[in-house]
Amino acid sequence: MKNQNAPTMKDVAKKAGVSLGTVSKVINNIPVGPSYRLKVEQAIKELNYEVNTYARGLKTNRTNIIALIIPDNINPFFSGLAHYIEAALYQRKYKLMLCCSDGIREKEIEYLNLCSQNKVDGIIALTYSDIGNYVSKSIPLVSFDRHFDNNFTPMVSSDNYMGGVIATEKLIELGCKRPAFIRFSSSIPGEADKRKDGYFDTCKKYNIPPIVLDKNVFAQVDKELEDFICEHEHSDHTLDFDGIFSNTDLHAFKAKKILEEKGYRIPEDVQIIGFDGIRQFGEEELFVSSICQPIKELAETCVSILLSNEQETRPTLTLLPVKYEFGGTTKREKEN
Amino acid sequence: MKNQNAPTMKDVAKKAGVSLGTVSKVINNIPVGPSYRLKVEQAIKELNYEVNTYARGLKTNRTNIIALIIPDNINPFFSGLAHYIEAALYQRKYKLMLCCSDGIREKEIEYLNLCSQNKVDGIIALTYSDIGNYVSKSIPLVSFDRHFDNNFTPMVSSDNYMGGVIATEKLIELGCKRPAFIRFSSSIPGEADKRKDGYFDTCKKYNIPPIVLDKNVFAQVDKELEDFICEHEHSDHTLDFDGIFSNTDLHAFKAKKILEEKGYRIPEDVQIIGFDGIRQFGEEELFVSSICQPIKELAETCVSILLSNEQETRPTLTLLPVKYEFGGTTKREKEN
Repeated sequence: MKNQNAPTMKDVAKKAGVSLGTVSKVINNIPVGPSYRLKVEQAIKELNYEVNTYARGLKTNRTNIIALIIPDNINPFFSGLAHYIEAALYQRKYKLMLCCSDGIREKEIEYLNLCSQNKVDGIIALTYSDIGNYVSKSIPLVSFDRHFDNNFTPMVSSDNYMGGVIATEKLIELGCKRPAFIRFSSSIPGEADKRKDGYFDTCKKYNIPPIVLDKNVFAQVDKELEDFICEHEHSDHTLDFDGIFSNTDLHAFKAKKILEEKGYRIPEDVQIIGFDGIRQFGEEELFVSSICQPIKELAETCVSILLSNEQETRPTLTLLPVKYEFGGTTKREKEN
Repeated sequence: MKNQNAPTMKDVAKKAGVSLGTVSKVINNIPVGPSYRLKVEQAIKELNYEVNTYARGLKTNRTNIIALIIPDNINPFFSGLAHYIEAALYQRKYKLMLCCSDGIREKEIEYLNLCSQNKVDGIIALTYSDIGNYVSKSIPLVSFDRHFDNNFTPMVSSDNYMGGVIATEKLIELGCKRPAFIRFSSSIPGEADKRKDGYFDTCKKYNIPPIVLDKNVFAQVDKELEDFICEHEHSDHTLDFDGIFSNTDLHAFKAKKILEEKGYRIPEDVQIIGFDGIRQFGEEELFVSSICQPIKELAETCVSILLSNEQETRPTLTLLPVKYEFGGTTKREKEN
């Protein structure tokens, strides 16, 4: 790929009638007199000179590439986050390196090391493993949703606790007497755990005994859901619960399908609220009524904290507000 | 980020008791005697020496980064393609730079230029504009789905023509007498245009007069679909067509919703087959019966052609087979 006849910095200097040092300053964005800058830029244009990234990298030690570590790019929440992070980086003249870890610890650590190898200027990570020990204070890193076991990695997340409160309050407001909570989740602690706390505290506030299905596995979700429903089902085809707040839209959607197969009507018999705000085909309707995460703003916040010049004063935790949106599995406000 | 106390190649040479040239060879994967290699690797490990990517880049002129240009990372087909391309690159020790162009010509050209700036080693592009003139023969590039107006850019695609044939044949096999074809597409020619050819040729084979809605726009899709249905609807609530082959799953899904709202039963009154194989939440059930693109194999093929050492003999066109999959909007094979 190397073009042996490509113009060099020397050619630019000669054409512009300035010193090599002046050309270097212009290329590396170091201030020079405006007339010099103009001459150099003109010569660069005329010669079609292209900056050698490596040569510049040796000088500036920057790549203008940011790595994003996510488990995969198939889950619509992760791919949406990647989409908006790419857009936010593009506006700032940065590029995105997409790193899918499959939630595997070794891959996450390998990707974290990219930064110390000078391959990227910073990392935004949505990780599943306890990799806090592998993070150096000198590496610009922002964590999405996960706590790292150090006290310096800035974290960005939705206000999951408020999301849990809003979902449970909304179910009650729409007529539910016994909202249940269901969750299938990673065993690694994260901000998303607070969705459950929001549910419990709201139940307590209204003196409602909680009904909970909470599993630290993703296997056999359908069977676990069926067992849970059977457990709370009576011989007269009624249920202990008349509402479900699900930790994710996916599991809300699965619960809906199983309940409908069993002859229950959604939302008449059971109202369901999920969490995430996932849309059909990426941008069509919601799959279920949901507590929607502000995915575009979350992406923007991750990028702006990561690239902030004020590394000393950046917030260690930033929570963005979520909001309820109707998606067909709850009663309409007016109907109540 | 620069660590002033980091060990240098000199330190490694001293520790290993070898010359600087030997260290350089080991780092740049140039053959040296095994005992020397061992000594250097040992010293690198003990000193925790990290290779300076820029210094190596100046020598090898390689970044081991491949850029993927896609319109966006929200459409599940594009994000799935990115996911599997990342995985295929990871296996070959390459990294993925994700570039979302929004289908904007200027952004596509800007991303194409990354390669000539030595920022990436190659490009996989799913573009929407006529940018063939901006491609140099010296840049490793593989195009997905789109023809470039040059005769050297290798293209990878699904066998779209066969997909059109399979869809139309399947509708007829399942009892349809009058399958219609609907399409909303970009005006830029591409391999996907052949889906329509497959439909037309199959209609001809069976002496069926085609019924077609074909628009080069994405605006007002719902209204266009409604108008099309009304146009082919009779006063006795019957339709000219009893099957639809849609150019994409998204538009198949939209057609299904509108037909159901009008009181038609899917698949009893109208059977629908889409194209793509998009799944709910990325990996759950299909939205509609579909001609599924082999997304993982397409990704693998793009990568293996791009990184092939035999640049002279790589295929200019590679088409992978598609297959029909039941997704609820067609009759079951046995029912017929």
